[in-house]
Amino acid sequence: MLDLAVEAHELARARTGTEIPGVTVERETLPYATVTTVRVETAEAERIMQKPRGTYITIEAPALRDNNRRAHKPIVELLAQKLRLLLQNLNLPETASVLVVGLGNWHATPDALGPRTIDYTLVTRHLHRYAPQELRGGMREVSAIAPGVLGITGIETAEIIRGVVEKIRPALIITVDALAARNVERITTSIQLADTGISPGSGIGNDRTGINYETMGVPVIAIGVPTVVHAAFIASDAMEKLWQELNKNPNLQRVYKFLHPELVQNVVDTLLAPFGGRLMVTPKEIDSLIQNTAKIIAGGIATALHPGIPAEEFSLYLG
Amino acid sequence: MLDLAVEAHELARARTGTEIPGVTVERETLPYATVTTVRVETAEAERIMQKPRGTYITIEAPALRDNNRRAHKPIVELLAQKLRLLLQNLNLPETASVLVVGLGNWHATPDALGPRTIDYTLVTRHLHRYAPQELRGGMREVSAIAPGVLGITGIETAEIIRGVVEKIRPALIITVDALAARNVERITTSIQLADTGISPGSGIGNDRTGINYETMGVPVIAIGVPTVVHAAFIASDAMEKLWQELNKNPNLQRVYKFLHPELVQNVVDTLLAPFGGRLMVTPKEIDSLIQNTAKIIAGGIATALHPGIPAEEFSLYLG
Amino acid sequence: MLDLAVEAHELARARTGTEIPGVTVERETLPYATVTTVRVETAEAERIMQKPRGTYITIEAPALRDNNRRAHKPIVELLAQKLRLLLQNLNLPETASVLVVGLGNWHATPDALGPRTIDYTLVTRHLHRYAPQELRGGMREVSAIAPGVLGITGIETAEIIRGVVEKIRPALIITVDALAARNVERITTSIQLADTGISPGSGIGNDRTGINYETMGVPVIAIGVPTVVHAAFIASDAMEKLWQELNKNPNLQRVYKFLHPELVQNVVDTLLAPFGGRLMVTPKEIDSLIQNTAKIIAGGIATALHPGIPAEEFSLYLG
Amino acid sequence: MLDLAVEAHELARARTGTEIPGVTVERETLPYATVTTVRVETAEAERIMQKPRGTYITIEAPALRDNNRRAHKPIVELLAQKLRLLLQNLNLPETASVLVVGLGNWHATPDALGPRTIDYTLVTRHLHRYAPQELRGGMREVSAIAPGVLGITGIETAEIIRGVVEKIRPALIITVDALAARNVERITTSIQLADTGISPGSGIGNDRTGINYETMGVPVIAIGVPTVVHAAFIASDAMEKLWQELNKNPNLQRVYKFLHPELVQNVVDTLLAPFGGRLMVTPKEIDSLIQNTAKIIAGGIATALHPGIPAEEFSLYLG
Repeated sequence: MLDLAVEAHELARARTGTEIPGVTVERETLPYATVTTVRVETAEAERIMQKPRGTYITIEAPALRDNNRRAHKPIVELLAQKLRLLLQNLNLPETASVLVVGLGNWHATPDALGPRTIDYTLVTRHLHRYAPQELRGGMREVSAIAPGVLGITGIETAEIIRGVVEKIRPALIITVDALAARNVERITTSIQLADTGISPGSGIGNDRTGINYETMGVPVIAIGVPTVVHAAFIASDAMEKLWQELNKNPNLQRVYKFLHPELVQNVVDTLLAPFGGRLMVTPKEIDSLIQNTAKIIAGGIATALHPGIPAEEFSLYLG
Repeated sequence: MLDLAVEAHELARARTGTEIPGVTVERETLPYATVTTVRVETAEAERIMQKPRGTYITIEAPALRDNNRRAHKPIVELLAQKLRLLLQNLNLPETASVLVVGLGNWHATPDALGPRTIDYTLVTRHLHRYAPQELRGGMREVSAIAPGVLGITGIETAEIIRGVVEKIRPALIITVDALAARNVERITTSIQLADTGISPGSGIGNDRTGINYETMGVPVIAIGVPTVVHAAFIASDAMEKLWQELNKNPNLQRVYKFLHPELVQNVVDTLLAPFGGRLMVTPKEIDSLIQNTAKIIAGGIATALHPGIPAEEFSLYLG
Repeated sequence: MLDLAVEAHELARARTGTEIPGVTVERETLPYATVTTVRVETAEAERIMQKPRGTYITIEAPALRDNNRRAHKPIVELLAQKLRLLLQNLNLPETASVLVVGLGNWHATPDALGPRTIDYTLVTRHLHRYAPQELRGGMREVSAIAPGVLGITGIETAEIIRGVVEKIRPALIITVDALAARNVERITTSIQLADTGISPGSGIGNDRTGINYETMGVPVIAIGVPTVVHAAFIASDAMEKLWQELNKNPNLQRVYKFLHPELVQNVVDTLLAPFGGRLMVTPKEIDSLIQNTAKIIAGGIATALHPGIPAEEFSLYLG
Repeated sequence: MLDLAVEAHELARARTGTEIPGVTVERETLPYATVTTVRVETAEAERIMQKPRGTYITIEAPALRDNNRRAHKPIVELLAQKLRLLLQNLNLPETASVLVVGLGNWHATPDALGPRTIDYTLVTRHLHRYAPQELRGGMREVSAIAPGVLGITGIETAEIIRGVVEKIRPALIITVDALAARNVERITTSIQLADTGISPGSGIGNDRTGINYETMGVPVIAIGVPTVVHAAFIASDAMEKLWQELNKNPNLQRVYKFLHPELVQNVVDTLLAPFGGRLMVTPKEIDSLIQNTAKIIAGGIATALHPGIPAEEFSLYLG
């Protein structure tokens, strides 16, 4: 299963050779980013895409990868705008309270995006409880948790979140998670927003349980950023591309029969056996990329949730 | 309010000049540690001590402060033994499941003892769920969370814990927390175990809500280690000691009337105004003391909870 | 010995009851800061102040302690302006290369200001070596090291710096260090710049060797920020203030003879014995204060050293 | 260029199809490890292997990857034994002083092995200077530095080390570094010891300058552990293995001409373009693998350098 809907869509089209019925795709080109909105609208589309029905917005902005705050500013604003769009579709009141959930393992750098984002999240719920009205300054009620992973807590992540949700009754959950991409180009250059929540088995940890309307009882918007590509994809892509090159020679087309998927899978398995599925391809500078991306996501969430506060004020609150 | 029952008892005796009715104190002297068990048994004792009824066991072991694993071993064993004692009093079945809760703020070094202990806690609940019987090897079902603090999450710590408790239904909660001592000698040399849970307002963060049988619906054993002394105590102790010196001179006894508590409090307030109550006295090497103490607490908990595993095996599981 | 010249001056005046010959003091009041320039000009002044001859500029700005970047901006600019002043006095060419040295122990939070500042320092020396002229954009040649402390390396800090200096031959050294103040008000609200370098025994680690023109062969500007007060000062200040209160009563003036320094020292020693001189008073939020202060110092240094780059660009380079 | 001599040797043999003249290889099989000693003895061997003349000892121990201290113990002992062997060849006096250098970038997890090892290194040089003879207890004079990387300091790593070496004049340098392997099986399962020091361009950072007898004036023993494989190797290995499969069919042997290296390189470049050479394959749990490996290396170095201290005592000194 692919974490990014745009990649799931590319793959489904490549496999079937046709457009996917029940899926609509819109593309928007901006000076610094491309936005692709994939809508999965039917049960058949769900099955082919292996993605639940809903809206998946992907912002692709190569500047995310630069260590340059000025270039990050329009991305923060674009993220906020798309998040507001999903919020409007939910018809929540302006003051509806939100729980931000940072998924992932803080002790594994490429999986730490969620918890790092919580470090930068502007939390206000306790001010609403304890501060006078005039100090709240147009701020919505926001709370935040980083529930950890099964190996650290011994508890399913969804159980922890569900427990907290039942106590504090937010009107909406926003999850933040590190994803695995199919294509190395997308590592820390894409942000996906989905109004479907988190499906079981997604994310780079592979052990995410479902965190969505069905399991939580409130709508869940999932924000994800690819931080790794499974090494297996690099290996099988290399073989696939090699085959395409060989295939340009008409004499070689009968080689094709030897290139069947079992062979490719077999080569990959042999090659990557020592660490099983846990070998990841990631850039050497992943530590600082995670740090920057966490700030951008937290900034986008704050801008979308607290419209009463001008964007330049957030640095006053954020660390 | 004082976090350590032994200090609350000393103070109450000094203030009243008599033994406190309804409080019993037992002292045990071991080669490497002193153990003091304070029992608060009546409503009057509760009021005088400002501590809820229950058993408070304090292990004082100066070797806790040394960076010497060999010296830590008997302390781990002693902690386990005292924890088992409290467990036995609760009459829980051998296999009763336990939730370990690391209280405090991971971004403030002296308050990070709880979360650091969770890093070293041997968690087994997921193995019980997913692993075959024979792999569980005499291990009880243990889970662990570090719920953060109000300023990070916007949620009362007790609400988060209660939410998780209602989902996973442990038979017992063990909390781990950094405490404030009255006396600098006790910084990272004492471990207090109490079967009363956590009272509101305790801990160095000053914002702990009650985490006890009343709020959680299951028994709560609280493990705490002093990591700071409030600067105000240093200042007022200095004045108190000075007074004792002055008072040795009979001519000066009438000075006493000027030394009334308001004056002392006034001096302290003037001196420490800039940071309010948040000035802490702590040793320069607090970062490594917290690290060592977290390992010792996690080791003691593991030894007490998993009697089927020999102590020397824990390093095989712990990081 | 006191780390801050303003405090050494206050103390010397209090002790002698007169102005100190050979010391000039200038005060400048700005909307958001006070700047005090102490000049130690004679051998006698050196002896009384226990500070080497030179210029000590102290910026006192309470907003340093707020987590508010907008309030930090004018402080960064003021720091840069004062640093440029000291640079001009040295008559170095505009392009003279600079080595920034972050002193202190990265494993002890309040002592980690120097190493943290190096994390945020805009380093350009390698670009000068390897990048074409047009990419250097008005940037001076800057390099940076965090040499650690004796207990970590086994090597005197001054030896490491001297070794590097002899290899790369900078025209100037700027050190950044955490200081101990006498007064809690100054914790992370004051920045001292001194053209004297570092004297032996200064800094909160107490083990700094001299890092100055004499030992390094190039001028050394020392930037320091108090991050702690020794607990002993809190205790003796409390006694001193108590005495002042008692002394308002004319009948008590003869008590004075009992309040001689030995008694005070004796009380302090008894009180703080367990950790010797290593008990520090520091605010609970010291971790985030160090983080913010490191960014401010690094920003001020970058603004002063690279005048060709507008201040708002630094965030493009800094993390 | 390959960092591991065993891999360089395998590659050279595969390429030439013969044994390499001037290279000797010895294999030793132990219950928990394999030790391969490669000796490069002639100028021709240097050229073919692309490795300077000298002795390269590689310990391969899959248990390095387990989080199990008991399994690590014999590896620490084996590492110490092989390090002592290299020390003996150098004919240094028993008391010769040693400088341990932790190479790499502490802000990039897979490159942080060197600096992390310094955190655990038992440093004694300052005790030799300041402590009485009887407290030194059979400990050799050891100092340690983590000089950082060019991008952090602006200074060539070799310049910093050379500067320190000229000041403190050690008789030997031991470097510790993260390496890039060719084969994923070797990630954190192999330790290479070489008496040749560090060649320019080795290590995962790709910017190491030479750190060897020629540049330092003292012998340099290099300890390295592979923590990553370049993603390009995974891709080209996959294609190579695919080719071997295809080639089993005699009809396909003429396909071979299309599989020339340029094609393979071209596919790899297209696939991995976005991050250039900086895409690394690394296991998800690399953070904890680095932590464990750093302790093992530091333990092995301490055991070899301080023969007067029984191995079990090191935990008394180490954190």
